[in-house]
Parts: sequence; C-alpha cells; structure tokens
Amino acid sequence: MKVLEERIRHDGIVKSNDVLKVDSFLNHQIDVDLVEQIAQEFYNRFSGKTITKVLTLETSGIAIAYPVARAFGVPLVYAKKGNSINMDGERYIAEIPSLTRKKPGRVVISKKFLQPDDCVLIIDDILANGGALQSLVSLVETAEATVVGLGIVIEKGFQEGGHRIRNLGYDLQSLAIVDALDADSGRIVFRDTDE
Amino acid sequence: MKVLEERIRHDGIVKSNDVLKVDSFLNHQIDVDLVEQIAQEFYNRFSGKTITKVLTLETSGIAIAYPVARAFGVPLVYAKKGNSINMDGERYIAEIPSLTRKKPGRVVISKKFLQPDDCVLIIDDILANGGALQSLVSLVETAEATVVGLGIVIEKGFQEGGHRIRNLGYDLQSLAIVDALDADSGRIVFRDTDE
Repeated sequence: MKVLEERIRHDGIVKSNDVLKVDSFLNHQIDVDLVEQIAQEFYNRFSGKTITKVLTLETSGIAIAYPVARAFGVPLVYAKKGNSINMDGERYIAEIPSLTRKKPGRVVISKKFLQPDDCVLIIDDILANGGALQSLVSLVETAEATVVGLGIVIEKGFQEGGHRIRNLGYDLQSLAIVDALDADSGRIVFRDTDE
Repeated sequence: MKVLEERIRHDGIVKSNDVLKVDSFLNHQIDVDLVEQIAQEFYNRFSGKTITKVLTLETSGIAIAYPVARAFGVPLVYAKKGNSINMDGERYIAEIPSLTRKKPGRVVISKKFLQPDDCVLIIDDILANGGALQSLVSLVETAEATVVGLGIVIEKGFQEGGHRIRNLGYDLQSLAIVDALDADSGRIVFRDTDE
C-alpha cells in the first residue's frame, strides 16, 4: 500500500536493525485519515468473503480494527491480555508462544463473543514473531469458529511471524512488509507487493 | 441519549449495586453502529468548539474516541497505563489518584503528542470515581494545552467522579448517567437529562 509505505518512510523511526517506531501515526498518536484508508484497503482485500466479526488484541490493534469492523458492518471484539480481573463467566484462554526472551503471556476472551458459526477476520497493527497473532488464531479455533483471514498493517518480513502463519495455510494480508531496517542510515527496505 | 439508555437497560448486566457490565456492546465486544451514534452525539455537543486533538486512555476508551476523532478530523492520542517500556523520549506522567482500595497507577504520554497550542477533547467510556479522568486532565494541563471538554459514555452518578470534575469547572458531558443500580431486581435508574 503505497501511501502507507510513504508514511512509514517519512515518519517511521528506525530505532535499531529490528525496531521501527510508528507511534506518531499508528500506535500512540493515530492519524485517523490514514487509518481510514488502511481500513478501506482491508475491506477491499477481504470483501468477497463472509465475515461476522472482527477480532483484535488490546491495545494497539483496536484503533485499526474499529474502522474495519465498521466497513464490514459487524461487531468488533478485542481479546484482553493477562488475567483480566473484570472478566467473569466462561472464557477462552490462549498462551502467547514464547518466541522471544520476553516472558510468555496469555490472551483471554469471553466465550459468549466467539460462537462456532462466527467467520472471523483478525486485524492487528504489527506482525513480528507472530506469537500474539497465533494466540488470536488459537482463540478462534478453540471456539470452533472460522478464521477467514488476517490483516496486518506492518509486517516485519525479516522476522518469523508472517512465514509461520502463511505456512499454516491462512490468508494473511500485510499492507506493508518491511524486509530490512538499517539503524545507521535510517533506511527502510520494503518488499515488492503486487499493487 | 435515549438509544444508549435503552441499550444499557436491555444488555447491561447489574452485577452488584455499584457494578454495571456493558461488555457485550461497549468494552469487550463493540457494537459499531451504536458507537457511531455515540460519536455523532459527542460531535453535536462539542462541535461549536475548536478541537485539535482527541485524548483517551488505553484500553476501553480507544474504540469510542476513534470515531470522535474522525468526526472532528483530528488525530487521536491515547495515554498509556503504567511504565510503558516501549515509550522512549520525553513524556508527561500523571498519577491516577488512589480513590479506591486499588493501588494507585500512572498514565503516560509522549510529550511530542501534546503541545501548548492543543485544544483537547477527552473521551472515555465509563466515569466512576474519576481518578483516570483526572489523570488525563493533569497530562493536558502539564503540557500547558487546553481541556476543551470531556465526553463520557456512561457516568455512574452515584460515585464521585462527575461531581468532582464539574466542580473543577470543566465541561463534562455524559451521554447516560446512572443514578442507581439494584442488583436484586436488576433495576437501573437513569438521571433525567435535557434531551
């Protein structure tokens, strides 16, 4: 998605060879105009499919997933991290695979918000090692609902997540794929995508 | 706001005399159609004023604040809770006043996203004791920006927050004010508002 790549080049900050900060427009301050275009692009890519729910993970996925849910005219559900003390009743829990040195975490969702007949589009802002995304897939499958597809704003193509999820056979659409970051020069290399 | 009150009566669950669960449409699963109407109502109430930014607090405020920011055509910024390890650079920090038995917390925002010339509309989903909301006000004032107003979806009128914030002179608009909850009967009493 050209407008997104241009924005990442312009306002993204290469903190190290594997860390790209996009907090000025995507995940602390949100450029609503840009996110509306992102949502429209996800709508275009998945509009041929039946979707009954959009699922994301708190926190930074919510502002992306909301306009996608609006575009499809379906509810948005966000899974919560950790042991949510305010959530009662039955819930599905998935471990976030510990792919990095960070301690493993959990994601939780109330059972009542994922039914077996749900066709779920999973949306998130950043895909790196894919642990969080895999835990969302796991929640959907535990509920015996269907993962229709996964939409990611920025995939770090030099990390494992995208490869891992596509290998499992899912329709993963990333609007920008960053194949390399160079902290010394600030250079960002995007993968050529078919647009 | 009648449609909101009706929805709270229909789908809100009175868990105790001071706990009302609205997770089926407002803060776990989100009814996008309802939230669009909520955002339009906030727009109507504040549209005479100059607003340059919409500010909320992660997590549950984000899906409400996003369409409000879209309506005003301004960026959305969400403050983060605790010590965000991913946030570098200079930041404003405010303590959440410890009004309950819970331990006090902190809210954090990057300084670059709140400038002295910003006119800020603060949006959140629920107002109870007002600690979180006061910490957002504190962030804005520390940045020497202006709090134009505060918009809340559901105010628990039997708790202190609304009184406290209005007493400080702020324009606080709550779309539904719950004056009493009765766990035995499930009854919800709304305050009469001028609509």
